[in-house]
Amino acid sequence: MTTSIGTQGRPSVAGPGSTGPVGYSLPLSPTGESAMLTPPPWHFSGEVIMVDYRVDPDAARRFLPPGLEPGADPGAAAAVFATWQWCSADGAELTDPGHCQFGEFLILLSCEFEGRPMARAPYAWVDQAVPMMRGWLQGMPKQFGVVHQSWPITVGKAGSRLAPGGRFDGALTVNGRRVVEASVTVERTTDQPPALHDVPLAHTLMFPEWVPSAEGPRPKLVASEVSDVEFSPIWTGSGDLTFFAGLGDDFQALAPLETVAGHVFSYGETLHGGRLLSDYSVSNGISHDHGGPSAEDPLHS
Amino acid sequence: MTTSIGTQGRPSVAGPGSTGPVGYSLPLSPTGESAMLTPPPWHFSGEVIMVDYRVDPDAARRFLPPGLEPGADPGAAAAVFATWQWCSADGAELTDPGHCQFGEFLILLSCEFEGRPMARAPYAWVDQAVPMMRGWLQGMPKQFGVVHQSWPITVGKAGSRLAPGGRFDGALTVNGRRVVEASVTVERTTDQPPALHDVPLAHTLMFPEWVPSAEGPRPKLVASEVSDVEFSPIWTGSGDLTFFAGLGDDFQALAPLETVAGHVFSYGETLHGGRLLSDYSVSNGISHDHGGPSAEDPLHS
Amino acid sequence: MTTSIGTQGRPSVAGPGSTGPVGYSLPLSPTGESAMLTPPPWHFSGEVIMVDYRVDPDAARRFLPPGLEPGADPGAAAAVFATWQWCSADGAELTDPGHCQFGEFLILLSCEFEGRPMARAPYAWVDQAVPMMRGWLQGMPKQFGVVHQSWPITVGKAGSRLAPGGRFDGALTVNGRRVVEASVTVERTTDQPPALHDVPLAHTLMFPEWVPSAEGPRPKLVASEVSDVEFSPIWTGSGDLTFFAGLGDDFQALAPLETVAGHVFSYGETLHGGRLLSDYSVSNGISHDHGGPSAEDPLHS
Amino acid sequence: MTTSIGTQGRPSVAGPGSTGPVGYSLPLSPTGESAMLTPPPWHFSGEVIMVDYRVDPDAARRFLPPGLEPGADPGAAAAVFATWQWCSADGAELTDPGHCQFGEFLILLSCEFEGRPMARAPYAWVDQAVPMMRGWLQGMPKQFGVVHQSWPITVGKAGSRLAPGGRFDGALTVNGRRVVEASVTVERTTDQPPALHDVPLAHTLMFPEWVPSAEGPRPKLVASEVSDVEFSPIWTGSGDLTFFAGLGDDFQALAPLETVAGHVFSYGETLHGGRLLSDYSVSNGISHDHGGPSAEDPLHS
Repeated sequence: MTTSIGTQGRPSVAGPGSTGPVGYSLPLSPTGESAMLTPPPWHFSGEVIMVDYRVDPDAARRFLPPGLEPGADPGAAAAVFATWQWCSADGAELTDPGHCQFGEFLILLSCEFEGRPMARAPYAWVDQAVPMMRGWLQGMPKQFGVVHQSWPITVGKAGSRLAPGGRFDGALTVNGRRVVEASVTVERTTDQPPALHDVPLAHTLMFPEWVPSAEGPRPKLVASEVSDVEFSPIWTGSGDLTFFAGLGDDFQALAPLETVAGHVFSYGETLHGGRLLSDYSVSNGISHDHGGPSAEDPLHS
Repeated sequence: MTTSIGTQGRPSVAGPGSTGPVGYSLPLSPTGESAMLTPPPWHFSGEVIMVDYRVDPDAARRFLPPGLEPGADPGAAAAVFATWQWCSADGAELTDPGHCQFGEFLILLSCEFEGRPMARAPYAWVDQAVPMMRGWLQGMPKQFGVVHQSWPITVGKAGSRLAPGGRFDGALTVNGRRVVEASVTVERTTDQPPALHDVPLAHTLMFPEWVPSAEGPRPKLVASEVSDVEFSPIWTGSGDLTFFAGLGDDFQALAPLETVAGHVFSYGETLHGGRLLSDYSVSNGISHDHGGPSAEDPLHS
Repeated sequence: MTTSIGTQGRPSVAGPGSTGPVGYSLPLSPTGESAMLTPPPWHFSGEVIMVDYRVDPDAARRFLPPGLEPGADPGAAAAVFATWQWCSADGAELTDPGHCQFGEFLILLSCEFEGRPMARAPYAWVDQAVPMMRGWLQGMPKQFGVVHQSWPITVGKAGSRLAPGGRFDGALTVNGRRVVEASVTVERTTDQPPALHDVPLAHTLMFPEWVPSAEGPRPKLVASEVSDVEFSPIWTGSGDLTFFAGLGDDFQALAPLETVAGHVFSYGETLHGGRLLSDYSVSNGISHDHGGPSAEDPLHS
Repeated sequence: MTTSIGTQGRPSVAGPGSTGPVGYSLPLSPTGESAMLTPPPWHFSGEVIMVDYRVDPDAARRFLPPGLEPGADPGAAAAVFATWQWCSADGAELTDPGHCQFGEFLILLSCEFEGRPMARAPYAWVDQAVPMMRGWLQGMPKQFGVVHQSWPITVGKAGSRLAPGGRFDGALTVNGRRVVEASVTVERTTDQPPALHDVPLAHTLMFPEWVPSAEGPRPKLVASEVSDVEFSPIWTGSGDLTFFAGLGDDFQALAPLETVAGHVFSYGETLHGGRLLSDYSVSNGISHDHGGPSAEDPLHS
């Protein structure tokens, strides 16, 4: 591996050798400037509409890989709509709003790793290619969807203000079919973040093997290291959540039994990289904790 | 004409007669519920990034129809990026964020009608079909474009806050080509709205004749009646504005000679309908003012 | 009205006067080159997947305006998916495939005007802004949708050939919801065009009044003049058609009772303009035929 | 690793263990049905517009990883627009045209591996998420772009027929900017496939390391195994190709010095998987050939 400096002043990981094209990711190019992805850290600032809900605990358990346990509240789940701006360390993407913005929807399931509360995202959709690919490199199963959500207004009449009774909606369309709708009506503010948005996410890092090996793919259970987590005051109230047909029985098994609460808030974080929780390819029920990073990812991205 | 009540409780204008399909607009249907457009009033709440700039006064004059004069400041122009939520009187669209949101970019030219300061929008683009069509019914020449603009953040590091030095960008792509980019860096707040966003818009209402008539199409100079105009505090500073090739020489003639200022603010209004300023088909230099509505459209939409 | 010559060598209809901006349509500009629409004639070449089906005759009748009668086969209907290329007389758009291509879905109902077989399109969707707006200028109620359809293959295995047993699908998504799916399995070729694709379309030309008049809007029943109609051999067989919820009860009333046949073919035409069948604003049950154009529109667009 | 059977009858690779969620790719789910990607083989049938051109040989060389040499014709390159249908072994995707179709643009550079003629794709763009992700799993650096290309017509006047003088255009927009335009005018048919479309592609398989290792990422040089390659008659003539600014200096270094020929044809193949050409992480200039598969990928996808 060779480290060179790309034209944007970012360190580039060499591809095939010191004389070949380089880059943090594909596409590799002479200077590394063509890489689709920039290396972390990445900053995120987003607007979130979130519904806490109850899921069938048995259904949720079937989505947990070895190493993750249902934990103290096995039927706790959440549906999260978020509209993000993101940028790399140097902030270069921020002058190009078509590049640095995306919408996201994801499902969170309550779980534990070695007794520590975490969340599992069995499904996620985004509306831009860069965060989709970046998700896979973290083990976050982002697919492509069309995501819409209300934003709070401060003037005029076309929307709700962040005030008691304000209503905020989210909708997800996948492959031309409406599959999720959510609605939150806020009543009061709190400084207490929603539980499932304030614990680390445990992802399974796994790529299909293009050149088959004897052992098969080696999935890894990973968590992300984050810093600079910041919440706005959280507007809390009630939530509605509906799953429509179209994504298959596995997804449908996570449909809401009842909703618990709804939240609207702003959220920021910086994502630095991943750490290994458990390497399935070498462990046989023996978990390997690899020491204590300063913080883990309350969310992503 | 027959007035019936559609299923959404809205008055519907009959199409061809009491026994035929009805609707405020096409498509006509038995109850009128299928109409693409709802009748006014429409409420709008939006986030605006605006650059005041100077244009060649002669170029601007060539975009003014008879009845409009260059006015006291003939080279004043503005480029406006806006992200809108809209709804009809009953607010029904607000629960469907994919339907009630759109992005817009437009150019404004300073002008006068009978000595009264107004603005002319020679070009406008939106990213949704309903506001495009609704624009044409008002005489506003909205075409389809891809519009992106920064939004202010309140937490995290991925963007600018509304604070001195905050930078906000806008970009317009038309038919696959980037044609406009703008950037505003804000320095201070003011309660004084930007001049070109605080005067009525004068549109030319004109449709091509599908069944040719002897007289040809009858363009009308119209203005819009609005109420409930609301501005947030206006963040003001400097602006940059670039036009790229791709839209033709007529558009390019309105390229900036220099920029004057930049603004970021929120804006709300309610749009009630149009009034005739001048009917070209019957006037020969004789303007007809049709009396005093309570207010005219500072912007649109 | 003044006629000038735009920069593309096309005649431009003056807007407000000889000294003002001109154009065949909005936006008006000094030379007319900025007009979103070009004047007819327009050429169309398309690939069509069509399902003939039976609709409730009473439901169909409620979509017919005065002047149109159900005719000899009142329950005959069709669902048409088409992928088009179009161009103006000089063909200029053809070098820009992102501009000259669009997808369309429409419903056709059998009807008669003064004893002559015609078709009525109560609903249509396209995936580009120019054909949507051009539809309204003809009275064709085009809205925005996402349209997909299979294309026949000639090599490889990823699709069907135009051969017995070949299957071709179409799907329409409107506002993020899948609302129509169709499938045709072809069995044999014929030179007989599908009946509803081979009769003129009768549209209602109507725009909401922005400046309200005492009389209200004046809808007109119009037909289009076409020439150079060309069909490929028509592959015919069976068809499936499903309407899903999401477009309201009026649309749903036109859902298929049964399907009759399916067709796959290529189609070309040149569209020259419209002619008046009946002017509702002056007629009281008295129809006015305005003479005999050489041909009327078998389809559109 | 555990192999189970998903609900679609496809073998699923287990994720973290026999009791956890499974799938060929993320997202993992109880039955494996939620996986974004299906396992190979995949069938492809496409329509291709291709321009052979000359590139600066030194610029091309800088895009070749260790193991690939410039070969006998070091300045040979091609720009390829293609519109694809694809499906898995069971053809399930074909009934959903919005899912099984995509557009693609890619650059090909002539090269050799151990004396054998191959092609290198330094850049590729597609307009759908599934083929983008599937590309990365093969080492093909697909990014997201908006791709348009003319299709040949057989009736009407809105386009060109596959006949002498027929013109076919392609255009690529990336991140809102037009970056490539191509045009081919065909003159005659041949059975000789274009050279760069008839050799295997050599990709670099590399993912950024989310959990950093001591060695860094291990890029691998791989080729794909294909079968059932099928070409239509190839229409050949002249080609034009233009690169516009917007993708950076590395991409621009591959801009055309001159164009050589243009081609329009249909193409089919079946893609079975990858084989290792060279493992950079263990080789030090020593190439490892891993035996002879029946065929390698003339193109991809």
